[in-house]
Amino acid sequence: MNIYVSGTGLTKFGELFEKSLLDLALEASVLALKESRIAREEIDAVVVSNMLAEKISGQSHLGALVSSALGLKNVEAFRVEAACASGGVAVKKGVDLLRTGNYRRVLILGVEKMTDQKAFLVTEALATAAGAEKESFYGFTFPSLYALMANRYFHQYKIGRKELAMVAVKNHYHGARNSKAHFQKEINLETVLKSSMIAEPLSLFDSSPISDGAAAVILSTEKPRAANPVRIIASSCASDSLALADRASLTSIASAKVAAKKAFKEAGLEPKDIDVLEVHDCFTIAEIIALEDLGFFKKGEAGKAVRLGKTYCNQALPVNTSGGLKAAGHPVGATGVKQIIEIAYQLQNRATDRQVKNPKFGLTHNVGGSGATAVVNILTNS
Amino acid sequence: MNIYVSGTGLTKFGELFEKSLLDLALEASVLALKESRIAREEIDAVVVSNMLAEKISGQSHLGALVSSALGLKNVEAFRVEAACASGGVAVKKGVDLLRTGNYRRVLILGVEKMTDQKAFLVTEALATAAGAEKESFYGFTFPSLYALMANRYFHQYKIGRKELAMVAVKNHYHGARNSKAHFQKEINLETVLKSSMIAEPLSLFDSSPISDGAAAVILSTEKPRAANPVRIIASSCASDSLALADRASLTSIASAKVAAKKAFKEAGLEPKDIDVLEVHDCFTIAEIIALEDLGFFKKGEAGKAVRLGKTYCNQALPVNTSGGLKAAGHPVGATGVKQIIEIAYQLQNRATDRQVKNPKFGLTHNVGGSGATAVVNILTNS
Repeated sequence: MNIYVSGTGLTKFGELFEKSLLDLALEASVLALKESRIAREEIDAVVVSNMLAEKISGQSHLGALVSSALGLKNVEAFRVEAACASGGVAVKKGVDLLRTGNYRRVLILGVEKMTDQKAFLVTEALATAAGAEKESFYGFTFPSLYALMANRYFHQYKIGRKELAMVAVKNHYHGARNSKAHFQKEINLETVLKSSMIAEPLSLFDSSPISDGAAAVILSTEKPRAANPVRIIASSCASDSLALADRASLTSIASAKVAAKKAFKEAGLEPKDIDVLEVHDCFTIAEIIALEDLGFFKKGEAGKAVRLGKTYCNQALPVNTSGGLKAAGHPVGATGVKQIIEIAYQLQNRATDRQVKNPKFGLTHNVGGSGATAVVNILTNS
Repeated sequence: MNIYVSGTGLTKFGELFEKSLLDLALEASVLALKESRIAREEIDAVVVSNMLAEKISGQSHLGALVSSALGLKNVEAFRVEAACASGGVAVKKGVDLLRTGNYRRVLILGVEKMTDQKAFLVTEALATAAGAEKESFYGFTFPSLYALMANRYFHQYKIGRKELAMVAVKNHYHGARNSKAHFQKEINLETVLKSSMIAEPLSLFDSSPISDGAAAVILSTEKPRAANPVRIIASSCASDSLALADRASLTSIASAKVAAKKAFKEAGLEPKDIDVLEVHDCFTIAEIIALEDLGFFKKGEAGKAVRLGKTYCNQALPVNTSGGLKAAGHPVGATGVKQIIEIAYQLQNRATDRQVKNPKFGLTHNVGGSGATAVVNILTNS
């Protein structure tokens, strides 16, 4: 069965104080419907990805909220949540619905409205994705958890703050070429290295921002009426313990390795076949670890590739051409869906100044928490 | 494809102050695994249903939390949420996973820990399932929304508080015969009619309680190793607007009608074929409306059937033999899964003093909010 990306819709990511959760959800969904040339009545189900709406906007039950506001009369609708991997999981659920044979067109919407609360409350809400009993209860938030991972990585392998900073510089370079990105300004190494320390060794510019935004895709089993055909040929999800203390390693994310292995097997591909990828760079260290977990570099060697500039959009292995979470922004429920859209853009040659040359296969890597959930999707235009 | 209920696990429902969210989740899951005689390593995916853990327990990301705590190494795991219909949706997602042909055994867990916060905070958290912009912002909570429905129903049809009270009396009669029920004590009409008014015309005893609890089922495509075979032969989900103000009717829930119609069609059955049912009686009026939406009675006639005692476990149409939400309790994420377990018990002749005589087909009806989501499942032992 072919599963096509038949339409995409993306809002600007950023501090969108004038737009509500529902405004963003509808904007992205309507854009996706329009691009797909699929009528509302033809949508068989709606999957909504969101993490924080209860705590930020006092609103749960987003499946019904969004589908009824879109005028999709009495359609099946539900929300999925797996922390920052919610978007990837929602895409996987859309794929699964189509694979039952009982659905033909499903709308996948990722949405997050984060800026309606003070930053410390958002940080606290995000920390619900960590282990309550072993981490957040003791004051851990995600910058400190990823800082532990970075420190251990520095201890085991020969990289330091400079390699991390180069991830941020590269992703801002890409973000400056993406009109939907939260940050569209290039930065240099000094900017990162001199920025405020958040959790040693991670500085402000090693960290993805708090963003509002929404991303929607329509997946279907029929060839798209409008867009160039892009298919999802593998979709895989795996889990691990929430708490870092319960993991075998701090420098590798087992769920991502398992999800990647399953996805490559399903697609019948290897890492060398992939031409462009979006990975979950919530902090710069996460991009380094992701490239190794996915099999693109041996353990400890991704930092060197970054230092040599190999992951720019016009180089050997383009990574996070959207700007990643770091520069494009990280409205958590939207991120995993936005990754699919960026890869679709690349495979359709729609990525403007950040376009990769003739890519055939693209991959997305979306992580929840410090690695308790990971989703890997593989797409192709062939 | 046959989809079997291969194992069930149910905690006591009630005010379980000595048990945490994770304690309850593990207790139900381990019971279900044990009953199924399926090894942990054989589980292909975990679907967790929960509504309130972020707000009550400071914990999201329950898919990974539960699967890792169970020792299910790197399995696919995620949470679904559709307010009080989360459990029904989770069952539907399990059915969908199996229908893809890529999964053989999935664990569906519904869990809710509600009593760790003060009741007014729980009420506020529950109200996130209503429309934030049109309802909860103005102070509406669910008792008042269902009271609007009850008042309109009283206005259109010839019933009053007495018929509602008889729903509560009947469900307490059943709850008194269920060792897992929150309330295991029979009550009489006077108890209901003289209890504190919550939202005119709904009194304390017209309302389901705030409960802790968990329910787990293992669904599989293979014949159960242990339990008598019970199959899910239809599973259907539909949506509607969150806000009552946007609905065509206050005395009927369109999502439930649509979900029921689809489910009966899928099963090739009619209401008259159903021998036992669990419906979503969050408030007594909801049971009356449910029986009409599902097609068991013409509009305006369910109250009469209740008055005549026809919905007791030893009568023509046994409804809520578990005690329903009213007496068995309503740990919201667990409710839709518990309904499946009660019907499985009935179809396996395991329902002790509340056993229905030789049932062949059973139905569950799970509603989110005031009707924005509805899920209908049909089961059989034949």
